[in-house]
Amino acid sequence: MSQEFSYEILEEVAVLSENAKGWTKELNLISWNNRPAKFDLRDWAPNHEKMGKGITLTNEEFAVLKETLNKM
Amino acid sequence: MSQEFSYEILEEVAVLSENAKGWTKELNLISWNNRPAKFDLRDWAPNHEKMGKGITLTNEEFAVLKETLNKM
Repeated sequence: MSQEFSYEILEEVAVLSENAKGWTKELNLISWNNRPAKFDLRDWAPNHEKMGKGITLTNEEFAVLKETLNKM
Repeated sequence: MSQEFSYEILEEVAVLSENAKGWTKELNLISWNNRPAKFDLRDWAPNHEKMGKGITLTNEEFAVLKETLNKM
């Protein structure tokens, strides 16, 4: 089954790294299917032409992550 | 082609969330194939019996993420 989805990168928060082929690991604020934006950690091809593996964090998950990293 | 791999969770740094089925989204320090530990954000079944989707961060990527979140 094929499913349509849309996304919009609302804010490019940080680029964590770039590999030899130009793919970047990024923290972005993304709206999926026009829903409220979520933080997203993911690999991207140059110019965001393709998306790779990654994870989306809810606001609550992001808050716990932020608090954890602030203490480290 | 099937490939063997091993992993060891060296430190459970934080549990970001838990869903209705008991799966948790966690930040852990994991050694893959006996290599040096890396930070890993991933979904896990109860008692780490199964691993779900997630991403592994190099030390450099983790440092950039930490610096970014500290400023937010």
